[in-house]
Amino acid sequence: MIILDYIKHYRCTLCETAYPPPVDFYTCPTCGEQGILDIEYDYDALRSIVDRAYFARETERSMWRYYPLMSVKDKNTRSLAVGWTPLYPTNRLHASIGIESLYIKDEGANPTGSLKDRASAVAVLKAIETGNTTVAASSTGNAASSLAGNAARLGLKSVIFVPKRAPKGKLAQLLAYGARVISVEGDYKAAFTLSKAAIDHYGWYNRNAAINPHMVEGKKTVAYEIAEQLGFTLPDWVVVSVGDGCTIAGLYKGFYDLKALGITGRIPKILGVQSEGCAPFIEAARKNCGLEESNEDTIADSIAVGIPRNPVKALNAVRYSRGAWVTVSDEAILKAITTLGSQEGVFAEPAAAASLAGAEAALKQGIIDKADTAVLINTGNGLKDTQSVQDYLKGPVRLKPDLDALIDYIDHEEA
Amino acid sequence: MIILDYIKHYRCTLCETAYPPPVDFYTCPTCGEQGILDIEYDYDALRSIVDRAYFARETERSMWRYYPLMSVKDKNTRSLAVGWTPLYPTNRLHASIGIESLYIKDEGANPTGSLKDRASAVAVLKAIETGNTTVAASSTGNAASSLAGNAARLGLKSVIFVPKRAPKGKLAQLLAYGARVISVEGDYKAAFTLSKAAIDHYGWYNRNAAINPHMVEGKKTVAYEIAEQLGFTLPDWVVVSVGDGCTIAGLYKGFYDLKALGITGRIPKILGVQSEGCAPFIEAARKNCGLEESNEDTIADSIAVGIPRNPVKALNAVRYSRGAWVTVSDEAILKAITTLGSQEGVFAEPAAAASLAGAEAALKQGIIDKADTAVLINTGNGLKDTQSVQDYLKGPVRLKPDLDALIDYIDHEEA
Repeated sequence: MIILDYIKHYRCTLCETAYPPPVDFYTCPTCGEQGILDIEYDYDALRSIVDRAYFARETERSMWRYYPLMSVKDKNTRSLAVGWTPLYPTNRLHASIGIESLYIKDEGANPTGSLKDRASAVAVLKAIETGNTTVAASSTGNAASSLAGNAARLGLKSVIFVPKRAPKGKLAQLLAYGARVISVEGDYKAAFTLSKAAIDHYGWYNRNAAINPHMVEGKKTVAYEIAEQLGFTLPDWVVVSVGDGCTIAGLYKGFYDLKALGITGRIPKILGVQSEGCAPFIEAARKNCGLEESNEDTIADSIAVGIPRNPVKALNAVRYSRGAWVTVSDEAILKAITTLGSQEGVFAEPAAAASLAGAEAALKQGIIDKADTAVLINTGNGLKDTQSVQDYLKGPVRLKPDLDALIDYIDHEEA
Repeated sequence: MIILDYIKHYRCTLCETAYPPPVDFYTCPTCGEQGILDIEYDYDALRSIVDRAYFARETERSMWRYYPLMSVKDKNTRSLAVGWTPLYPTNRLHASIGIESLYIKDEGANPTGSLKDRASAVAVLKAIETGNTTVAASSTGNAASSLAGNAARLGLKSVIFVPKRAPKGKLAQLLAYGARVISVEGDYKAAFTLSKAAIDHYGWYNRNAAINPHMVEGKKTVAYEIAEQLGFTLPDWVVVSVGDGCTIAGLYKGFYDLKALGITGRIPKILGVQSEGCAPFIEAARKNCGLEESNEDTIADSIAVGIPRNPVKALNAVRYSRGAWVTVSDEAILKAITTLGSQEGVFAEPAAAASLAGAEAALKQGIIDKADTAVLINTGNGLKDTQSVQDYLKGPVRLKPDLDALIDYIDHEEA
C-alpha cells in the first residue's frame, strides 16, 4: 500500500516534463503517443528499505520478490509464478564461441514461455488497480499469450490483436487461454493501429508495452535477477534481441535502479541484437538520427517490428550502458538455436537464439572481448515456434523396426 | 558419496527377490524384462537425516533438494534446473467443477516442458556414474526431448527412438537438442522393441522408464514437492494421467517415502486417468487380472501406450493408496485444455489436461467427494502439442484493420 509513495514522477522521454503521481494517462499529454513516460523512483527513500540484506532475507521465488521497486500497489499471491528463472553458467558454449565466461538467463521457463510474462503480470495487476476487467494488446505473439495467460489466471478478459503472420502455435496458446483474438490483415503496424483505436473506443486496459510505462517496470526484474544470481558481481555484457525496444529498456532500467540504490557499482554494457531483415535501431544508431520504418523480413517473428514504439528508451539503454548494436542473419539465428540446444540443453525460439548469434558476431567484430563475461537472455521458449527449426533441421531418420537396418545406418554414419 | 549407503536393496516387483547394491542390471535376472525392480531405502537410517527441519533448512530450489532420498551418488550443479515447479491453488476452477479445494502442480514449467525431466535428470547422472557417454530411450515424445535436453546440458550423446506418430513440435525440440532421432515405422511398441535391441547391442545407458528403476526415483520428487508446498497437509486426492505407468508409480513412491520417514501420516488417494481409446490399466483393474494389449487411439499421445511396461507399480499405486481408475474421452480432454487455460492461465498438453477431465469424471461418479481437496498434475506444457488444440478451437476472427468493422463484430458478439 505504501509502494506507490516511492514513485517520484513519470517523466516524458521526449520533453522531459515530470508528472507527479497519480497519473491517469499512458503517454505525455504534450508530446502524444511518442511521449513515452519513464517512472522515476525516490531512491533516497528506497535505499533504506532495499539493500543486499533485503535480497538475502526475501524468500519469495518469483519476480514479486522485487515488488517494492515496482510500480504496483501490492503483489498478488494468486498470480502466475513469473520470474526467478534459471541463470545457467554454460558448460561448453563459452569455450566453443571463445569467451571466458558465459551465462544463459532462461526466460523460456516463465509460465507462458517468455520474458513477456514479466510485463503482463504487472499489466493485469495495474488493470485491477484501475478497475478494469478487460485488458488488450497488439503483439507479434509472446506479449499476447502472456497477457492472455496472466489475465485468465486473475479472471480478467483479454482482447488480442495479432498480425496475420503470427505463428499458429502461438495463436493456439492464447486461444486456449480464452482470449478474444483479432487477426488483423496486415503487419504488426496494422495490428498496433487497430488495437489503439479499439482501446480508445472501449476503454480497455492497454498493455501495449511501449505506450504503457509500467511494462518496462515489470521487465526490469530480469536485470535484478541476473545481478542477484551472480552474487552482485555483474557481467561485462548482457545480450538481448530487440523488437519494440521495451525489453532492452527494461534490462537497462533494472541495472540502473540497482546502481542508483547503491547495491551495485556500475551498469553492464548492453548488446542490442536485431535481425538483418528488420534492423531499424541499428540504422538509427549508425546514422545517429531518428528511427525510420523498416521491413519486417525475418523468421524471428518476436523481433520483427518495423516501427519500434519505444525508440528513445531502447537507444538510451545501449548508449548509456556504453554497449553496442549488431545485426545477425536468419541463418545465424537458426544455427544458434541448434548450438544452444545441443551444447547447453536450452531450447530457444528464433528471436531468443538471436542473442547467441549476436554475441558471436560481437566477438568476431571485437566488440566483446574474449576475456569478458557475458549473459545471453533467452527471451522465449523454443516450443513457441517449432516450425522455423523444423524447416531448418534435417528431420529424423525413418527406419523399419529392424536392428540390422539400424546398425547399418549408425555404423555408416559413424564411419 | 554416502548416498548409495541408504539403498538397502533392489526388489523385484514380481518374484520379490531382494538384490543388495551394487546392482548392474536393469530388471530382475530371474524374471527378465517383466521383473521391474523397486529401490528400497534404509528408512531407519534416513529418518535421522531427512525430517521436516531438513526441508525447512534446504535452500536448493530444484528436485535436487531431495537428493539424499534419491538413488544418485551426488547432485550435479551443472544440470538443468528441474523441479520445484509451481503448485497453484485454483482461483476459479474448483468452484466451476464443484470441489472444495483444488491445486494444479504445473510440471509444464520444467526445463524441457514436462514432468519427464525429473526422470531424465536422474538418467544422465546415472549414465555418468556408470561411465556411459551415450543415453538412449524410446518415447512417445516427452521422455525423448527431456532426455535429449538433459543429456545435451551435461555433454552426453542421446539416441531417441520415436513412433511414427510423434508430434512434429516434439521432434523439432529434440532435434534442436542435437539428439540422434530414429523414427520407427510403427507404434510405440515397435519403437520400444527396436530401442531395446539397439541398447543391448551398443551398451548405451537405458532410460526406458519401466526398465530402469531409477526413473521412478526421479519422478517421485513431484510428490515430495506437493507435500512440502502444502505445508505437509496432504490432499485427499492426487490426479494424474497414465501411459507407461512410471509417473503414477513415482507419485506413489514419493508419498510412500514420506510416510515411511514419519514426515507425513498417510498417502493421498491416487486417481489414475487413461483415455477411452487406450485404457489397458482400467481394463486390468476392472477384471482384476493382468494387462492386455490395447489400441493406441487417442489424441493424448503422451499416454497412448498400448503395452504399458510398468504394470505392477502402476496398479499398486492405485490399489495401495485406495485410489481409483477412470477413463476420459478425447473430447473431454480437449475441453479440459481450454478450461485450464481460460480459468487458471495454465496451458496443458492433451495428456496433462486429462487429469482435469478425470477429476471431473470422478466427481460425477462420486469417487471424489465435493468436500475433498485434490491436486491435478499438469504433466506437460501445452506448447508441446499445439496442433490438437488448434484443430479443436475456433480460430481467431480475421478482420481488416478498420475500427468500424471491429466494433460491428464485437457488439454483435456481445449482443
